[in-house]
Amino acid sequence: MHSSELNARIVSRGKEFFTSIAGEKPSLFDKGAWMGKAMDWSMRNDQFKVQLFRFVDVFPSLTTSRLLTEHIREYFGDEEAMPPFMATGAKVAGMLGSFGGAVLNRVLTSNVEDMARQFIVGETTKEAVKNLEKLRKDGFAAVVDVLGEATLSEEEAEAYTNTYLELLETLKKEQGTWKGLPGTGGDPDLDWGHAPRVNIAVKPTALYCLANPQDFEGSVVAILNRMRRIFRKVMALNGFLCIDMESYRFKDMTLEVFRRLRLEHPGYPHLGIALQAYQKDTDRDLDGLLAWAKEQGVPISIRLVKGAYWDYETVRARQNGWEVPVWTIKAETDAAFERQSRKILENHAVCHFACGSHNIRTISAVMELARELNVPPDRYEFQVLYGMAEPVRKGILRVAGRIRLYCPYGSMVPGMGYLVRRLLENTANESFLRKSFAEEARIEQLLEDPAVAAEREREARAARPEKERTGPDGLPPFGNEPMVDFTRPDHRAAFPDALARVRTQRGKTYPLFINGKEVLTAELMPTVNPNNPSEVLGQICQAGTKEAGDAVAAAKAAFPAWRDTDPRTRADYLLKAALIARTRIFDLSAWQILEIGKQWDQAYADVTEAIDFLEYYAREMMRLGEPQRLGHAPGELNHYCYEPRGVAAVIAPWNFPLAISTGMAAAAIVTGNCVVYKPSGLTPIVGWHLAELFREARLPDGVFNYVPGRSSVMGDYLVDHPDVSLIAFTGSLETGLRINERAARVQPGQANVKRVICEMGGKNAIIIDDDADLDEAVPQVLSSAFGFQGQKCSACSRVIVLDAIHDRFVARLVAMARAISVGPPEDPAHSMGAVADDNAMKRIREYIEIGKTEGQLLHEGPVPAGTGYYVPMTIIGGIRPEHCIAREEIFGPVLAVMRAKDFDEAIQWANAPRFALTGGVFSRSPEHLAKARREFRVGNLYLNRGITGALVERQPFGGSRMSGGGTKAGGPDYLLHFMDPRTVTENTMRRGFAPSDEESGRL
Amino acid sequence: MHSSELNARIVSRGKEFFTSIAGEKPSLFDKGAWMGKAMDWSMRNDQFKVQLFRFVDVFPSLTTSRLLTEHIREYFGDEEAMPPFMATGAKVAGMLGSFGGAVLNRVLTSNVEDMARQFIVGETTKEAVKNLEKLRKDGFAAVVDVLGEATLSEEEAEAYTNTYLELLETLKKEQGTWKGLPGTGGDPDLDWGHAPRVNIAVKPTALYCLANPQDFEGSVVAILNRMRRIFRKVMALNGFLCIDMESYRFKDMTLEVFRRLRLEHPGYPHLGIALQAYQKDTDRDLDGLLAWAKEQGVPISIRLVKGAYWDYETVRARQNGWEVPVWTIKAETDAAFERQSRKILENHAVCHFACGSHNIRTISAVMELARELNVPPDRYEFQVLYGMAEPVRKGILRVAGRIRLYCPYGSMVPGMGYLVRRLLENTANESFLRKSFAEEARIEQLLEDPAVAAEREREARAARPEKERTGPDGLPPFGNEPMVDFTRPDHRAAFPDALARVRTQRGKTYPLFINGKEVLTAELMPTVNPNNPSEVLGQICQAGTKEAGDAVAAAKAAFPAWRDTDPRTRADYLLKAALIARTRIFDLSAWQILEIGKQWDQAYADVTEAIDFLEYYAREMMRLGEPQRLGHAPGELNHYCYEPRGVAAVIAPWNFPLAISTGMAAAAIVTGNCVVYKPSGLTPIVGWHLAELFREARLPDGVFNYVPGRSSVMGDYLVDHPDVSLIAFTGSLETGLRINERAARVQPGQANVKRVICEMGGKNAIIIDDDADLDEAVPQVLSSAFGFQGQKCSACSRVIVLDAIHDRFVARLVAMARAISVGPPEDPAHSMGAVADDNAMKRIREYIEIGKTEGQLLHEGPVPAGTGYYVPMTIIGGIRPEHCIAREEIFGPVLAVMRAKDFDEAIQWANAPRFALTGGVFSRSPEHLAKARREFRVGNLYLNRGITGALVERQPFGGSRMSGGGTKAGGPDYLLHFMDPRTVTENTMRRGFAPSDEESGRL
Repeated sequence: MHSSELNARIVSRGKEFFTSIAGEKPSLFDKGAWMGKAMDWSMRNDQFKVQLFRFVDVFPSLTTSRLLTEHIREYFGDEEAMPPFMATGAKVAGMLGSFGGAVLNRVLTSNVEDMARQFIVGETTKEAVKNLEKLRKDGFAAVVDVLGEATLSEEEAEAYTNTYLELLETLKKEQGTWKGLPGTGGDPDLDWGHAPRVNIAVKPTALYCLANPQDFEGSVVAILNRMRRIFRKVMALNGFLCIDMESYRFKDMTLEVFRRLRLEHPGYPHLGIALQAYQKDTDRDLDGLLAWAKEQGVPISIRLVKGAYWDYETVRARQNGWEVPVWTIKAETDAAFERQSRKILENHAVCHFACGSHNIRTISAVMELARELNVPPDRYEFQVLYGMAEPVRKGILRVAGRIRLYCPYGSMVPGMGYLVRRLLENTANESFLRKSFAEEARIEQLLEDPAVAAEREREARAARPEKERTGPDGLPPFGNEPMVDFTRPDHRAAFPDALARVRTQRGKTYPLFINGKEVLTAELMPTVNPNNPSEVLGQICQAGTKEAGDAVAAAKAAFPAWRDTDPRTRADYLLKAALIARTRIFDLSAWQILEIGKQWDQAYADVTEAIDFLEYYAREMMRLGEPQRLGHAPGELNHYCYEPRGVAAVIAPWNFPLAISTGMAAAAIVTGNCVVYKPSGLTPIVGWHLAELFREARLPDGVFNYVPGRSSVMGDYLVDHPDVSLIAFTGSLETGLRINERAARVQPGQANVKRVICEMGGKNAIIIDDDADLDEAVPQVLSSAFGFQGQKCSACSRVIVLDAIHDRFVARLVAMARAISVGPPEDPAHSMGAVADDNAMKRIREYIEIGKTEGQLLHEGPVPAGTGYYVPMTIIGGIRPEHCIAREEIFGPVLAVMRAKDFDEAIQWANAPRFALTGGVFSRSPEHLAKARREFRVGNLYLNRGITGALVERQPFGGSRMSGGGTKAGGPDYLLHFMDPRTVTENTMRRGFAPSDEESGRL
Repeated sequence: MHSSELNARIVSRGKEFFTSIAGEKPSLFDKGAWMGKAMDWSMRNDQFKVQLFRFVDVFPSLTTSRLLTEHIREYFGDEEAMPPFMATGAKVAGMLGSFGGAVLNRVLTSNVEDMARQFIVGETTKEAVKNLEKLRKDGFAAVVDVLGEATLSEEEAEAYTNTYLELLETLKKEQGTWKGLPGTGGDPDLDWGHAPRVNIAVKPTALYCLANPQDFEGSVVAILNRMRRIFRKVMALNGFLCIDMESYRFKDMTLEVFRRLRLEHPGYPHLGIALQAYQKDTDRDLDGLLAWAKEQGVPISIRLVKGAYWDYETVRARQNGWEVPVWTIKAETDAAFERQSRKILENHAVCHFACGSHNIRTISAVMELARELNVPPDRYEFQVLYGMAEPVRKGILRVAGRIRLYCPYGSMVPGMGYLVRRLLENTANESFLRKSFAEEARIEQLLEDPAVAAEREREARAARPEKERTGPDGLPPFGNEPMVDFTRPDHRAAFPDALARVRTQRGKTYPLFINGKEVLTAELMPTVNPNNPSEVLGQICQAGTKEAGDAVAAAKAAFPAWRDTDPRTRADYLLKAALIARTRIFDLSAWQILEIGKQWDQAYADVTEAIDFLEYYAREMMRLGEPQRLGHAPGELNHYCYEPRGVAAVIAPWNFPLAISTGMAAAAIVTGNCVVYKPSGLTPIVGWHLAELFREARLPDGVFNYVPGRSSVMGDYLVDHPDVSLIAFTGSLETGLRINERAARVQPGQANVKRVICEMGGKNAIIIDDDADLDEAVPQVLSSAFGFQGQKCSACSRVIVLDAIHDRFVARLVAMARAISVGPPEDPAHSMGAVADDNAMKRIREYIEIGKTEGQLLHEGPVPAGTGYYVPMTIIGGIRPEHCIAREEIFGPVLAVMRAKDFDEAIQWANAPRFALTGGVFSRSPEHLAKARREFRVGNLYLNRGITGALVERQPFGGSRMSGGGTKAGGPDYLLHFMDPRTVTENTMRRGFAPSDEESGRL
């Protein structure tokens, strides 16, 4: 907090500022104009705001009049439903039928484009430079930024880099004609006598299409390679380069790029970086940077901004279970900005400061701080965004004599993302501009010390804690285990550590685990690293029918006591196992990286899913374990409750070797069944670790039995066993149907009609609608298709692209695919590795050959040298529904591209195979999304996102038709399949006397 | 309401009354004594009251010290948990270990017996007569009543009758020694100079073990036969006979018995009947009686009481969905009493009046009314119960000079039921005695005109209406369709009418119904009346594979549109069908009586169950049709919803030909599947009527198709059909397993993994614990075992009786069985009729022969002449778990009796068969009931009631093991089996902008 004298000066200056601009309004809030009206409606109507912003987002892709007309109707309804101002132009023109539609199209097009132009200095370099000159004439300096679509490929990154180089080339020519803006400095060739006339800002992730903290070093190097070329050109112009800060995910990477670039040219003064005051890390980052600069003796420049991705950062963190990295109280950000401004200004000798804010309180505070600290004018400047807060920029220019506008330029498509951010910023409830100019809040309030406001808000929040959701019986409510967070250096370091650690256990012999005891068998089977099959990870004892029979007997013997153990106690074992799993999460991930070839994030996600199953089913059982009262008649008491079935055979796949095994076993166990668990022969070590979790949780003997073995030897035996009452299976269609059929044959001595819970294959499609956001669709399709080599039942194996967008989509898809690096997943640079085993490799290669004859090969990636079970990443175009690779499950990195004439055909094709597991749609048409909800009949449908990675509780997983029995793992009905319901009815009337309902309800 | 002057006189008299007894307390409320303390605790602690009253109920059956000790502990806990007064005696004796237990036993035994003695004038005739004499010495006249257990057999009814005859014989001797009590009348040999010295009351249903309004005439005749014998003896003594009124169920029957007996001896003055003021019918009944007496010129006497079965009447009515027959506002009863007293006193010339009340307001009102109407003393008298309200009886004697005590006598066992009623009466919140003597309410309040109080309470209730439960989407909540009410003459008359009506349709030819059209086939099959196989009811067109295939094709074609019909609309068709079924409920019942031989009530219950399924599943689908939001993460929207599977084959049984067919078909339809329905070959006409219901509800063509036909011809065809995705089957184990196995084989072209919802057999047991209430257990076992000839999957086929009670149970069981009449169920005198067909008859007869060799034949009932498929009602004792008839489902009127050494063995035997459908326990041990809840592992367990007649919603029905797949018809999970869940996940964040949760939640 500032001293009260300083704060008084800040407030006083702020009041002067307000007085000086009294009566002026930013053009954005001018209700006389279309844009002002749109802003006004948005601020008063949340639903309209959503529709408007989404319309702005999709607008550039509405390239035909039909598309535009349809979307206008879908987003805003007909003219009756529309806010009057939107239809005005059309109404004037007598909006009727298609003619009216055309008028409305024109009105909206011109207004949305005007909105964008408000914030964008030009669509081309030429136009931008012309406008920059105009701004200079009005006394405004500029920092120029090139708008860019998401960079999905090396070609796109290269093109983006080249745009900067061309811009710099143009500016080089132009700046000769520019006089320096007037100011206090001494050099007439510089602006204000001290600042470079050319000043650009670059977003680092646009320079590398695969930037990803998981591959931190690789990403830094790749970005630096292109940044360096730009910086050289900047230096040649004696210009200024500011490295922009983007989302939190890339923050540390950006800092690293800045530091390395800085050290490469330690003498050149004009290199800066942006920091965001809303990041909770920024105080620490700033201290670090300043200390580093002093230590290295290098000059730095910092542009401090509040931060523009607040929604994104909070949503992303909450979705992933991470701490929200940004301040959630607006005043905390404002206070941090002032605090950090002081820190920078105190260090003005080493650090130049650019204050990026439209907030009059903030600007006043910086002005007063600079005065208090006697900071020379050439060591700090003010920046505002082009098109925003015109009164503020005028005021600053008047007071400070210098101001720089942040001027993006480029085409409409990327411009719209920028526009949405600006609209969001201006219409947010907490927006200073909204409060100042649209709502005319009290000036005292606007100028209050934010540190005081923040403290007050923190106290207020503490006084009214959010109504907490609660879980059953005092537990916290279920929440997904947080995802791995590669922004954390400890998480990045943990993987190599864990890999090294588990490797020390190579070659161990793994026993069976039956009735609480380890059992060794004569027959051993090695388990190997599919990326290097000569690396034997362990020798696995193999169960035959004898051992399988022993395990069933043990489970049967353990059953009565386990069934009678109360649900809460059973649930506690699962919670205990989850606790243990958390402590060894990296080792459990490392085993999967080695034993089945998962990438770091994929392996970790498998472990968190296993933890989720344990935590979720524990709570579900506590919910279902409570007998339910039925009916309302007096004199009788009806209870409905659930009972376990007996011995459950859990037959698990290798592709989610821990998660699916844990899910099926935990469900069986917590419901009171006893488990005979057969892991896949390809992942017995991961399976062993599940047995370890339950053993360490002290699950009673016989409740969980681990019996790896050859399916051909003991698979049918288990399924046929008369004492097995329940079979939970996840795997191939062929095996699933075989189990289903065998289990239906009643064996002599069998007690129960067997129940089979089976999850089988998929032939999953993603539909790309003609208005899809390709920036999102392309990477999501690739990760859905090729993550873990496509070896997920949920993987995308078909992409059905609408004709109008087909070629654009395919071009970007293939270009991005080319960037993907293949190799052992223990190196995070590789996003794809070997497939599961030799059989898989051969089978997939056969399908690729078939695909090549059926369609056109669009992409066949390289395969690394070595003995790993590699197949090339393959994309085949021109596939039709009747083709083999459009119908059969390949279970590998093969993607079929299909060109559909319209959305209906796309849905029809998507539904065509006998599977119905997952599916996706990228579309920004509300009607198409609604249609897909109804008609794209798969177990898990995903709209505008990838189709893998279903999360427990949020996306219960499983399909119907030939994909499975309609069970939904991780969903509210799943445990019901493991139990039989019972009804107990008590006549509570005796001798004509019936206790009141309340009395008789007690059990 | 009375005139205000009269009311003032009543209040004034009442105040005098209170003054005259000031300071006196009934012994019941004397807190110095054990009983007073027990009453006091009961009134302050509802749970203790329940336990005490239940303990009193079970007490007489605790014939060993062990039983007594256990029950004391189970009911009241150890001495710490017990109210201090209970343990006092034991504590004094240093209650420790078994010695303490023995003391406690003695203390409780003596106190409970004392309690009973408070109300019972003696245990034997001798003791009773001695005590009557004592009472006479104190000036009290008496009416004597013989306590009786429920009369379960003709032997018991005869014994009860004989007790009365013996009592009368004894009294005959005694009365010679009795002087008439002093009074105003002229005859010194009569009490008070005008009243017979011998006065008895008889409960009519105790004179016939099968009294039942369904067989109204039969019951009246049977009761009259014994009542007549008692009445003759009464007349010989110049005594008085009052026919007691019991529950509402028998009210009209009792009135009829009275009227007939009255007319047989029109000149004899001393015959009375009790009426209950709490019955809403009583004003009408009273008017009727008075008019009838005048018309017939016969003298009558009415004892008016308030009524003692209030709990029973309300509970029973609410359980059955009937209007509650008694007033639910206490003051309404009191007001009715005064109103009816006036009516009787106004008619004193024809009707003698006995006022039976302990309420000082009531008594005062009667006194004042009699005075106002100048009623001579010999035309009215006052009665109170022996042992109750001693101050009141003294007061009456003082004022009126005459009072009669109602004096029950007899053994403890039936005495306890009487005791519980008295305790209940005294401890009820609304009890006048409790208010007067235990709580000392204001006298003004106690003496208020009840008509005024009733009006006030009615208004108060109207002002605060009960919080109504509501159903989905504006529908009323689900409630079971009311049971048939044979107390209603219209219901009794409706059956013969309907039987005659449907018989006019005999011989009709029934077509198939496919795709909305009737289809005739060449092959016809007759359907006949099993009680008279020569009666052909209709000719049924038979579907072959061609027609079955057409039906599947029609269903498949109808599916897409039906699936896409919204759940509410689908539900509306079911509600419409329910509405239609209600209008023809008696015809639908009559068809079942003729086509499959159901008794009236059984047939009607089948129709109400069908209606319940329609109503319940309609609401369930509305609940499940609403997509469920999952998860709480921002920026994503997860919906979980359900989809139908396609074509459902519904293969129905004959035993609940409408209910089960409707349940399976309605579930399939409302969830969006299309149905091919194969009714049983034994009940195709009932099945046709289901088709009619759906047709008249205008269900779209093809959604429901009716295809009767031979299982051997088209059963497998349907099951194997690749376009059938779902099979709902109810029937035999053999067929069920066959279907399950065939359905698991995937056929070429099959789209879905088939799902089979199967309900199969049962081998259900009822356990009779050594403390069971045999009055309830015996009739419930019989109706569970022999209702509808035992042809229910829920029927009781084994009764497992604890050794200690075995012989007593069996004796009463067999005696009652002997009373049951066998013959065509269209005559309601027959509780059992022919079995389904010739095959069933032969199979059951074979089992009977096996049973005879395995055990001892305890009962083999007679079989009527004629060609019906009759088998004898059979009870076989000495059966052990290993016997064939203890293990195999017989599906006929054969009951195996097994003698178990203790409760654990009984549970073990009960669980032994491979079936696990229903089961029951009669026990009054809280621990045994709790144990049964846990360990008697059947789908539907019933405690202290019969084990058939599960109701939709209240008792979801179905078993596990070899009884079925663990589905529960009529329960909250049932519809899930007909659908597959789907998850739809939408990423709602675009360009970093995520709408608020509320906005994005809209679909």
